[in-house]
Formats: sequence, C-alpha cells, structure tokens
Amino acid sequence: MVKPRKALENVISYQLPIISRKNKIRLDLNESPLGCSPKVMEAIKSAHPDDISTYPEYQTLMEKIANCFEIKPENVLVSDGGDDAIRCVIDTYVEEKDEVIIPEPSYPMFEILCKIRGAKILKVPYDKDLSFPTEKVLGQINERTRMIVLPNPGNPTGTSIKGKDLVQILKRGKIVLLDEAYWHFAKKSYIRLIKDFDNLFVTQSFSKVFGLAGLRLGFLASEESNIQTVMKVALPFGVSSLAVMAGIAALDDKKFVEHIVKETEKEKRFLCQELEKFGNVLKVHKTDTNFLLVDFGEFGNEMHKKLADKNVLVRRMDGYSVLKGFLRITIGKREDNLALLEAIKEAIPFFN
Amino acid sequence: MVKPRKALENVISYQLPIISRKNKIRLDLNESPLGCSPKVMEAIKSAHPDDISTYPEYQTLMEKIANCFEIKPENVLVSDGGDDAIRCVIDTYVEEKDEVIIPEPSYPMFEILCKIRGAKILKVPYDKDLSFPTEKVLGQINERTRMIVLPNPGNPTGTSIKGKDLVQILKRGKIVLLDEAYWHFAKKSYIRLIKDFDNLFVTQSFSKVFGLAGLRLGFLASEESNIQTVMKVALPFGVSSLAVMAGIAALDDKKFVEHIVKETEKEKRFLCQELEKFGNVLKVHKTDTNFLLVDFGEFGNEMHKKLADKNVLVRRMDGYSVLKGFLRITIGKREDNLALLEAIKEAIPFFN
Repeated sequence: MVKPRKALENVISYQLPIISRKNKIRLDLNESPLGCSPKVMEAIKSAHPDDISTYPEYQTLMEKIANCFEIKPENVLVSDGGDDAIRCVIDTYVEEKDEVIIPEPSYPMFEILCKIRGAKILKVPYDKDLSFPTEKVLGQINERTRMIVLPNPGNPTGTSIKGKDLVQILKRGKIVLLDEAYWHFAKKSYIRLIKDFDNLFVTQSFSKVFGLAGLRLGFLASEESNIQTVMKVALPFGVSSLAVMAGIAALDDKKFVEHIVKETEKEKRFLCQELEKFGNVLKVHKTDTNFLLVDFGEFGNEMHKKLADKNVLVRRMDGYSVLKGFLRITIGKREDNLALLEAIKEAIPFFN
Repeated sequence: MVKPRKALENVISYQLPIISRKNKIRLDLNESPLGCSPKVMEAIKSAHPDDISTYPEYQTLMEKIANCFEIKPENVLVSDGGDDAIRCVIDTYVEEKDEVIIPEPSYPMFEILCKIRGAKILKVPYDKDLSFPTEKVLGQINERTRMIVLPNPGNPTGTSIKGKDLVQILKRGKIVLLDEAYWHFAKKSYIRLIKDFDNLFVTQSFSKVFGLAGLRLGFLASEESNIQTVMKVALPFGVSSLAVMAGIAALDDKKFVEHIVKETEKEKRFLCQELEKFGNVLKVHKTDTNFLLVDFGEFGNEMHKKLADKNVLVRRMDGYSVLKGFLRITIGKREDNLALLEAIKEAIPFFN
C-alpha cells in the first residue's frame, strides 16, 4: 500500500450501500419514486450511435439551464451530478488550513470534500427545532473563514434559509457555496443572486425532482469569470452525452416537474397523517423536501433493521447528535408508503 | 471574480473544441470512427426508467473488468472516463511541490491535473525518433520524485513502452501512473503487474476501442488497499448507470473489439500508403494506436486550416517543440480517410 497525502489520513469515504438496492423499497437516498419524465426516456431511446462514440458537447444544455433562471450560459458549468459541482468549487478556492463553515447535520460530502483539501471545518449546529442557525453562522465568520456552505433546503434537516439571512451572510464577502439540490420542493431558488454577489456559487442536481440520479447530472452557477476559473479543476468531458440529452428533455418538460412536486406534497401529507397515528412510538418532523425525519427515540436503530428485514430501506441519522434515534425517510409513491407503514406497524409490538 | 487557490494561477484549462464537431469528419480526438458495438446500443435502448432515476451500482461492472484481466474486483475503481481515474490517483498521492516526471509530448491532462495539485513537473522529452526515453526517465528519478507518468502507448507519440523498461522503472519504488487508454491497438496491457508492484496504478478508458467516448467511462486498477485509499477522493457516484450498462455490454462483445482493432490496422495501412504518395510535402510517422502523426513541416498550421475549411478536423501538435509542423490524425473509416486524402490533395497546390 502506498501512503496517500497527509490530508487524506483524516478522510473517511462516503459510505456507499453495501448490498444491491435493486427490487427493494428505496426510501433511503431521496431519489424520485416516480422516476423521470417519459420525454427523458424517449430522448435516451432516440440516441444515435454517434452520441455514444463521440465526446459530448455541452453548449445546448448550458443555454437551456441559463434560460430557466434568466442567467447566461457563461454563468453555468455542467457537472457529473451535484457532487462534482460542489467538488469543483471547493477544489478551486479552499487551500490547506482554510476555515470552512458547515451547518451540522449536513450532506456528508461537504465535509468529505473539504477534508480532502485539508481544510479546517467549523461545524455550526442547527437549532434544536432544526431552524437555520443564521446568527451562529454569522458569529463564526472571521478573517480565516474561506467558505460557508449553505444547503437550501438542507439535507437531512429539510430546513430552508430565509432570503434576508442569505443576503446578510453573502454581504460578509466570504465564498458562499449554496447547494440547492432540493430547491424545487421548497419552490425557492436563490440562483439569480449570482448577478449581485460574485462570492455566490450555487449548485443544483438533476437527481431529485427530475429523477435522473442514475445519469449523474448537475451544474454550478456563478459569476462568469468564476466559472472560467472553476473550469480549471473540472474535467473537460465530465458529463455524459446521454445525461446531456436527458437533461435537455427534463428541462423541457415543465409539467412533469410540477406533477412531481404536487405528488410529493400529496404523499407527504398522507404519510405524515398515517405516521402520526403511531404517535406513541414516533414523532414526525416535516421538511421542505422530498423526505421526512422521523424520531423513533431509543428504537431508531432497531426500527431501521426491522424495516430492512422487510426490504424497506430508510436512512439512519444516528451519526448526528441532534438526530439520535431519527430515521430519514424519502416520500415514496403510494405503494412504497403503504409498505413502509405496514412494516412499521408490524415492528411496533417488538418495542412495547 | 473570486481569487482561486495559488496553484491554479499557473493552470491553463484543457482546450475544448470551440465550435460543434457535429456532422464533421472528426479525425481530431481519436474516437472510434466505427462507433460502438450494436450490443451497447441494445443495452442502452433496454434501459428501464429505474436505471435512470436510481443511483448507479458498480459491482457487476467491476467484476466484469476484473475478469478480463484476471485481477479481483477489489483491484478496480470505475471512473468518469479515463481522466477521472488519472485525476483520482494524482489527487490521492501528489502533495504541493512534489516532483512528477512526465514524458513530453504527452496527453495534456497529465500536466494540468498535476499543476492543479501544485506539483513540480519534470518533462522528459521523447527521443527524436519518438522512442520511449527510458534512460532519461531513470536519470531524473531522485528523492523528491513522487510519481512517474507513463502512457502506454503514448499520445500523441503513439510509442509503446517495453516490459523490461517498465519493470526497471517500477523497481525504483516511486508511484507509476501507467495510462493505457490506447492499449488494445498495441495489443499489450501491463495491468497484471499490479500483482507484483503495489506502486503501480493503471488507468484505462472505454472511449477508444470500445467507442464509448460519449458515455464517460474508464477505470483504475491497482493493489487492493490502494484502491480503498483512492476511493476517498473519487465521487461516490461518479459513473452513470447507462455507462455501466454500456460498459458491461462492450466487454461482453469481444468479437467487436477484435473487429475494430483489425479494421483500424487495415485502414492505417491504407492511409499510410496513400499519404506516402504525397511524400514531397509530408512524412508519416506510424504509431501503435488509432492515429498517425503526419509531419507537414512549415505547412502544418496552414494544412490544418485548409482541412478544417473542408470540415475535416485533425489535431495541431505545434505546442510541442519536437512535433512542430505535425498534425495528429485519427484513423477514420474508409470514407473519412478518402475525404481527408482528397482535402490534402486539394490543398497541396497552395503550398508549392
């Protein structure tokens, strides 16, 4: 074994699922239970052999993304999923020992990607009610702060950030990495603020509302010269041609996105209402996203295992002190949700 | 504009084609002119909506790759094209100011990815006849050397490295990054040497002989614990599900690979023979790959332009002192090659 760079000694890889998730009820990774737009499937099936054998071109997709947000294609860098956009921003700006502020709990890749760069991470805990800790974030900013990571809405908290709070943080002049992977469900993107703040970097994903998690597509939006700079660390051909074709089709089908958002809301209401019937063993925390946080208290880990035994996959949150006993549960389609409820119901007697 | 990390000041991005290459005769990026296996197209057309909307799984592809080379799945990390595998190895091991030895001329991404890490690059020129400069490489190794990049065969030189030379370099104990993007055409991969040398990291690509450049698929092979370490800097879901399906289908169709290698050899012979008829204005350098180097002397740049005017795209090599006046030309299918020859023929009178 060859010894890696020093900074990597403290890095623990993102934990991939160890067994196949195929043919299971997948409520663990916040994918779209209703899949992608039929227009995306058409686009993929229409692929010409040339699309497969030649290097991809990104201009059309960049224009399409720019049009959605009234920004310019020069403000957009397409990426290998949202993760790649996050990676590129961190790799462009964060030097060893720079301080990066990350709210806790957050998507683990923020911390992993900063640690890879040898950054010092300051975790700012969400408030007990999981509201966004704006004052605490502002209080942590100092001359060593290089970047502030703000997920809007957050994962796993599901918490949105208020516009005035974001602006207050942006005005401090530090680099703000705003991850909007789940913004459609909260119906509020701050991407247009890149016109006013050249320290703002917004990342988005096609893995959630668009249902393209398998294709690995995301993007970064920022001021034009920032994009030119970030391109230095991006792979020149990081995104596949089929992801490009699918992304274009997905952006064209606005009705599908509306449908997914509506269905998610409807199923969220249903699931909350049904879960609350088990109020003696759990407590539901609603979010602005396509998942719920459910507090099973001391039975959290055991419930996770019981659900897995029934092929219902959900995500444990016990790595976070504020979420001990919680499970994060993606809002599924009706049959998934019914299977989940049934599995919970069957498990409950074991805890009494 | 926000100022990037210091190391990035010296990085110039890989130059992407500025205009669309669609509907042109593309002899500039060494793609497969005969496309991909029909089995790959079938695999893509068979995609289920679930394949699009759920995160990819890599185990089957890792096993398939491992089987091809009689190594273990644990020796394999799939990557977002060969570039991503190269990036991951460099990012795992190269600290700022480490010395990296790179033969010159080479694929530009080696240098770009090392510069991103702030490495000091020692370029070792290929010999005048473009044979591999083993002695010069060995002579440059010292206690500051962290990594030696060895492309086999090289791009744009097309030069193969002899097994005994590689072993001699490996025995010096430094990290060897062996890029085998073009190995099928030279019919010799050294991947099995990972069993004997834990300092060997082999990268391969599905963009060349397999004809999957659009899908972005490659992999890294190395000793098992090295792979575990490199995984720390790889994105957890870096490769798309359709690339996985296509990769599996491509590896299964061994006859197609044989066919491509044979066709490439046949067309290489044809193209060399026809080009040599223009011996008064050019000189052909044959390679072990799917491209030729053609020396047009003082007319190199002008010829590049004249060919582009006829929609025939080839690659200028004048960034490299040893290849001034050279054009790198991918072996096309017969009709591409005829169009190239015709365009050259038409251009020649302008240079006399």
